[in-house]
Amino acid sequence: MRKILLTLIILVSSAAFLSAQRPSVISPEVHPDNSVTFRFYARNAKSVSLDTEILPAPVKMTKDDSGVWSITIPPAKPDIYPYSFWVDSMEVNDPNNTYLFPNEGFKHSLVDIKGDKPLVHSLQNVPHGKVSYRTYTTAQGIAGTLVIYTPPGFDAKGTTRYPVLYLIHGGSDTEETWTKVGKANLIADNLIAQGKVKPMIIVMPYANTGLMMQKAFGNDMINNIIPFIEANYPVLTDRNNRAMAGFSVGGGATLNIGLMNLDKFAYVCAYAPYTQTPEFNANFGKWDPDVENYNKQLKLFTIYTGESDQYRQIIDRTIAIYEDKKFNLETMFVPGGHTWMNCRLFLATTLPQLFK
Amino acid sequence: MRKILLTLIILVSSAAFLSAQRPSVISPEVHPDNSVTFRFYARNAKSVSLDTEILPAPVKMTKDDSGVWSITIPPAKPDIYPYSFWVDSMEVNDPNNTYLFPNEGFKHSLVDIKGDKPLVHSLQNVPHGKVSYRTYTTAQGIAGTLVIYTPPGFDAKGTTRYPVLYLIHGGSDTEETWTKVGKANLIADNLIAQGKVKPMIIVMPYANTGLMMQKAFGNDMINNIIPFIEANYPVLTDRNNRAMAGFSVGGGATLNIGLMNLDKFAYVCAYAPYTQTPEFNANFGKWDPDVENYNKQLKLFTIYTGESDQYRQIIDRTIAIYEDKKFNLETMFVPGGHTWMNCRLFLATTLPQLFK
Repeated sequence: MRKILLTLIILVSSAAFLSAQRPSVISPEVHPDNSVTFRFYARNAKSVSLDTEILPAPVKMTKDDSGVWSITIPPAKPDIYPYSFWVDSMEVNDPNNTYLFPNEGFKHSLVDIKGDKPLVHSLQNVPHGKVSYRTYTTAQGIAGTLVIYTPPGFDAKGTTRYPVLYLIHGGSDTEETWTKVGKANLIADNLIAQGKVKPMIIVMPYANTGLMMQKAFGNDMINNIIPFIEANYPVLTDRNNRAMAGFSVGGGATLNIGLMNLDKFAYVCAYAPYTQTPEFNANFGKWDPDVENYNKQLKLFTIYTGESDQYRQIIDRTIAIYEDKKFNLETMFVPGGHTWMNCRLFLATTLPQLFK
Repeated sequence: MRKILLTLIILVSSAAFLSAQRPSVISPEVHPDNSVTFRFYARNAKSVSLDTEILPAPVKMTKDDSGVWSITIPPAKPDIYPYSFWVDSMEVNDPNNTYLFPNEGFKHSLVDIKGDKPLVHSLQNVPHGKVSYRTYTTAQGIAGTLVIYTPPGFDAKGTTRYPVLYLIHGGSDTEETWTKVGKANLIADNLIAQGKVKPMIIVMPYANTGLMMQKAFGNDMINNIIPFIEANYPVLTDRNNRAMAGFSVGGGATLNIGLMNLDKFAYVCAYAPYTQTPEFNANFGKWDPDVENYNKQLKLFTIYTGESDQYRQIIDRTIAIYEDKKFNLETMFVPGGHTWMNCRLFLATTLPQLFK
């Protein structure tokens, strides 16, 4: 829809609204057969490649007489994929695509291949929850940011009290990545509408995912974030109604915080956890837990990963720590790598298992 | 803070988390005297310039031996400024800066020069309202997006009922531009804390700002957006408690919708309104209004603009339409152009005048 509107703007008044240096380029263009054309204007570039998680490696684009480079890639499985352009030696996002991947380390664009049937993360015609941005005060006395999903029909002052999932992003992601890329809100909307998921609040903090900062973030979770949520939302405050999940460095944080605070969490779900951190070594290096008690108290303890995840060795060693100790750990291995396509699948697998 | 964390990540484990092709570059770096260093890695580029709204024209950057281009610009007035890099003939945003300008037509980065004293748009230690993302159903039956500010202490189910400002973005902006660039939420937080502004709800729709689409957006405002807000929030529903403001094409929309629906709005505030649209011509080309009635009913009717706004001629002609007819129009002319620095100033000027 926005593409159509943008095209209209261009047709009506291109001089007034768009820089004269930039021709009107549509990119990405998803075709009915799920093939996609990517276009990029760079008249003087020597080489432009498309780097997308749809394909295993970057592919060269070709330039037309107007200086627009393009490539059409074969039909892809419907999903949302990150991509960027390599222009000579420089990586850039797609200037013609509004849909960006929120991240502090890279700036990728996203292409949404919707397909014919609605996906678990698609915007569907179901009741929608609300996504709110709020600030709380961190241990350092500065404002921290939380993105908070409240389910459809959420009643802030009513008698209903909700369970809470604390959902942590990956290294260099931001508090927006789980909604804007992970579509946590739409996945919850859709599964709640299908009656498969209990209405819950999902709290997505900016998680200071620096490897040295994990201890600080853990303290912040326990001392500031959870108390903020419990003071401001009608939530159930027993451990059976509190879950934690996270991806990559956030998956490592989930193991650290979840397992070291068994009195607070009954559900601990790590997605492709990155655990090469001082905090993880301090917690689990010489760990001698009461496994029987853990197995009794943890209602769900999962580690999921893509089979070809770039951190697969680390993840396998992490799984071994818990399996060697006979934890009731559920593992799942799915095709693909350290991707947000898999994060959405992991979350959609976890949500129906929470708070039952 | 994030910069520090990111630096820590880089120090600890650059190979694991950042592409090997990209050196660790800090950009922008705001110095204590409010000068700013911008850096950009592009080993093979022939020429890189900084294009920023701080300076009147792009300035050339210089390359060091590691392929990093940089420039330090003189101390600037504290504010938030858009900027981009021109790399040979191509405009790109800053890959090392997470803070982006939400826009469908360009992708600028933002540099926040905070200065010594808190500004009206700064994050201050005051009670904070909430920014929520919600969907409603448009006239076309598709999901439209609203960003909604609710003030500190907002009580969804209580006895307090709130006035509402409908605040519209500019051409090619998105529903996020008024918060992420315009800082409407922080401006409201700060002025409410100072007792200068009445607690209110601010509704920032995705406004279909295509020039041909203004009529559709106007219908959507009246038939879908306002009813959605009134069904879902505790708001005052009389015209004296409903205001509309907007920037650029959204300023034109404000004049169209606000003045054509006098029964709905008592406050109509246009910021640098762009009015070269079929809708505006249809409404005001041969307009013969009951001016006395308008002047009686409008509690505030303003057109503000930068003195050197690129649409200044159009804006002056627009002002003349109303001044020639003896409307009680308040105008304000401030230094600068068609910028969001001015939008923040305009909004901070408007808010204390609403709902008094």
